[in-house]
Amino acid sequence: SGAMAKLTQLIDNEVFQAYATYATVVLLKMMIMSLVTAYFRVTRKAFANPEDTASFGKGETAKKYLRTDPDVERVRRNHLNDLENIVPFLGIGLLYALSSPELSTALLHFRIFAAARIFHTFAYLIPLPQPSRGLSWAAGYLVTILMAYRVLKTALHL
Amino acid sequence: SGAMAKLTQLIDNEVFQAYATYATVVLLKMMIMSLVTAYFRVTRKAFANPEDTASFGKGETAKKYLRTDPDVERVRRNHLNDLENIVPFLGIGLLYALSSPELSTALLHFRIFAAARIFHTFAYLIPLPQPSRGLSWAAGYLVTILMAYRVLKTALHL
Amino acid sequence: SGAMAKLTQLIDNEVFQAYATYATVVLLKMMIMSLVTAYFRVTRKAFANPEDTASFGKGETAKKYLRTDPDVERVRRNHLNDLENIVPFLGIGLLYALSSPELSTALLHFRIFAAARIFHTFAYLIPLPQPSRGLSWAAGYLVTILMAYRVLKTALHL
Repeated sequence: SGAMAKLTQLIDNEVFQAYATYATVVLLKMMIMSLVTAYFRVTRKAFANPEDTASFGKGETAKKYLRTDPDVERVRRNHLNDLENIVPFLGIGLLYALSSPELSTALLHFRIFAAARIFHTFAYLIPLPQPSRGLSWAAGYLVTILMAYRVLKTALHL
Repeated sequence: SGAMAKLTQLIDNEVFQAYATYATVVLLKMMIMSLVTAYFRVTRKAFANPEDTASFGKGETAKKYLRTDPDVERVRRNHLNDLENIVPFLGIGLLYALSSPELSTALLHFRIFAAARIFHTFAYLIPLPQPSRGLSWAAGYLVTILMAYRVLKTALHL
Repeated sequence: SGAMAKLTQLIDNEVFQAYATYATVVLLKMMIMSLVTAYFRVTRKAFANPEDTASFGKGETAKKYLRTDPDVERVRRNHLNDLENIVPFLGIGLLYALSSPELSTALLHFRIFAAARIFHTFAYLIPLPQPSRGLSWAAGYLVTILMAYRVLKTALHL
């Protein structure tokens, strides 16, 4: 149909394809944090819900696994930091992709953001000494601000 | 206008309509968590901000309501888990809807995701014994991965 | 190209421009919360990660800065509340913008949401006495529900 054709054209646009690719990559990266959290909860035996500790027995035996663990909390902070930074990228990046930027410029923005967030995760989980994590956070943040500037310049309608 | 016509065509596309419907449903479900949190904060008298306890009096009387409560914390974990899983669905699901999937396949993906997240909430809040919550989480997670695979297969532009 | 032309038409649509503007504004507002958190962490010397306190010395000297601070926690709650409310606005607002609403109606919805969230931040951080924060939260919440209703009325495909 005609509408289908238009949708196909949207996904056939190279800038939009680049957005689709990098948005999916950073979302998949963020989703991995759930698995890392589960891994640390199981290996550190540190759970948040009583029903999650039932397999360790009943009563006091299971209750001692209802606790926080530094490694689990570190992954959770990383996951929340991802949410705080990837949500703006998703929204602003989509609008930026629709503002007809040059493909090479768009790719540069998307690649820096994705690389920064992937490096940020390693810096957080290893952990690397500061300012590794701080700088990778700032790189993703600045790229998002630059894209927001272009969106507002192109589409401003207050 | 021509642009208006094109936008109407987008929302007239059946796969996009299905995405619009299920994305809205899971977002509304997530928004309900705010009301559930407020309900438990008021009934359990467990608040996070001093200004929220002012109606209970001044000084020490009000201060004792600045505390955490297991039921409130459970809802908050559920809400955060929603954010961690619904944000990927929103982004990847939109791109998936634009990748011209079969309507029946798309509906299957969206329905499983929405049903899984709604069941997940009941499993978390009742709570149901594990692995109820774990399996419903995994169902939504896997559907999102499957959609991401199709997006990358259709649009990959690194 | 033809596809480029279509994308340009999307961003040339006034309702979509209004969405792009207000979505970017509320995302930038949310991003500011990261800077406010960093400001309070540094001035209150309250950090979450050992590697962030390394510049204050080694061992016990640095360890005492691994602590929570009421001002830092307040900003973090504000940031999380932004995520919980701005994510639904991003998703539902985009679908609403594609449902061909009247420009004046759409602008009214977007402006109320953005104003409510900006006021909410001041109410949270100053803090203003309740129900200032509660009412501004409710205003943004209700506008999002109204937009969701129109999306479901326009696009319902279960």
